[in-house]
Amino acid sequence: MKLVVLPVLTLLAGVSPVSGALDRDKALSIGIILFPGFQPLDVIGPLDIFAGASGQQNMTISFLWKTAGPVSSVGPPRLFPGPPPPKLPPAAYPRQAVSMVATHSFADAPALDVLLVPGGMGNRFLNDTADTAMEDFVAARYPSLQYLLSVCTGGATLAKAGVLRGRRATTNKAAWAWATSFGDGVRWAPTARWTEDGNVWTSSGVSAGMDMTYEFVKVLLGSDVAASTINAMEYTPHVEREWDPYSVVFEVAGADTSRPMGDCVGPVGYDFKC
Amino acid sequence: MKLVVLPVLTLLAGVSPVSGALDRDKALSIGIILFPGFQPLDVIGPLDIFAGASGQQNMTISFLWKTAGPVSSVGPPRLFPGPPPPKLPPAAYPRQAVSMVATHSFADAPALDVLLVPGGMGNRFLNDTADTAMEDFVAARYPSLQYLLSVCTGGATLAKAGVLRGRRATTNKAAWAWATSFGDGVRWAPTARWTEDGNVWTSSGVSAGMDMTYEFVKVLLGSDVAASTINAMEYTPHVEREWDPYSVVFEVAGADTSRPMGDCVGPVGYDFKC
Repeated sequence: MKLVVLPVLTLLAGVSPVSGALDRDKALSIGIILFPGFQPLDVIGPLDIFAGASGQQNMTISFLWKTAGPVSSVGPPRLFPGPPPPKLPPAAYPRQAVSMVATHSFADAPALDVLLVPGGMGNRFLNDTADTAMEDFVAARYPSLQYLLSVCTGGATLAKAGVLRGRRATTNKAAWAWATSFGDGVRWAPTARWTEDGNVWTSSGVSAGMDMTYEFVKVLLGSDVAASTINAMEYTPHVEREWDPYSVVFEVAGADTSRPMGDCVGPVGYDFKC
Repeated sequence: MKLVVLPVLTLLAGVSPVSGALDRDKALSIGIILFPGFQPLDVIGPLDIFAGASGQQNMTISFLWKTAGPVSSVGPPRLFPGPPPPKLPPAAYPRQAVSMVATHSFADAPALDVLLVPGGMGNRFLNDTADTAMEDFVAARYPSLQYLLSVCTGGATLAKAGVLRGRRATTNKAAWAWATSFGDGVRWAPTARWTEDGNVWTSSGVSAGMDMTYEFVKVLLGSDVAASTINAMEYTPHVEREWDPYSVVFEVAGADTSRPMGDCVGPVGYDFKC
């Protein structure tokens, strides 16, 4: 087996300068929205990558909802129950949850450089009840952000906020029909694992947020920071943004069905083959 | 491209009976320990799989620490700082954190069928300060558990609790030397992504907890529940437990260096190739 010793290995042995575009002396302000019924991994996949990188880049991470305090990953029951989302089994038992703590209310949120919007079943409740607080916050803050990111059905929130007009975007593949029903003029990409269009990044469902965030950190903070962070998490990222086998699994309209379903993945910085 | 249509596709279209060994009418009680300085993905990777399965299997999930209430993923500064862990960059900036809510104190924890112990830098603080509350809880509860699981350096806690004596186990590859310094008679497996020995399952670092939990849910609740849950998360699991390229990345003593570093992964239930 042949290893390619890239700069990551140098970094792993000590502190290395950040090679990205940011001023390292300026603290990066990252905000992550929580809402009742958010999908936990949509939040924690990206969070763990940002938090890992926070040993090498001065940053603050804030968690935001209407009110500060604990937010449950199971939302209220839907008031206007429709049919279960296609391709997902209906919940025969109450879903179990974790609560995470919002550090700030929307009203008290600090200035943000990066805002990440997760998905989750709870945004259907917000939609059913015409609660626009989340998309209103996104729309209000977008002009002052450096980057706006969504994971999973968080893409629906971005669409409702109007920031995807004319942009290429993607979202959860199991909830494709619902999530892509929002927004005008969005160029939804059915086979993308994630998209980057200007300063707006969107990912497919749940785990895809980790792949997007790995690439985002690489662009923002440099390859060395991204590599040491993702390897320390023992996560092998999917690095090709234009291929997503779950577009085939969930029979997304317009999906590219011509490719093999498998993906060869390995530790970042190593010359791996399958 | 050829798809193999397995029972998962039947399940995805509706409710399917659980094929595992459990009595579906009995609520499964799962406990997950939180401690100051836990690694968020160690908790949420497995949690999202359990929570996803909780629509198809009656269960409760409790979060446990010395006291109920919010627990931060950044712990107190080490009182006896040693050198930084080998192969991890030292933290030049304060690590950023999320807080999750412990639903019960150790003293008030309900009866448990399954207990999962995450890792994280905070268990070094517990060790430095001779705080044995976590391993004491594990040791006290182990006799009444159906299964005990650890992720990452949570394996060190299991070793300290004495439950790994004579067992095969694994742990975080970057923190290998520290984590494997605990316990007597543990058969540490340097190249395992995860291990199963009797009713004790242990995984390698951070993301490896997802692969272990996918396999654990498959054993516990059946292939259909595991497949529909993991596909809905759009996560392609590493399914071979006896291979871990991070044992090579982090130069673990005794690691098998003879294998390719890449792994071909794809959606569960599909015939994929790379």
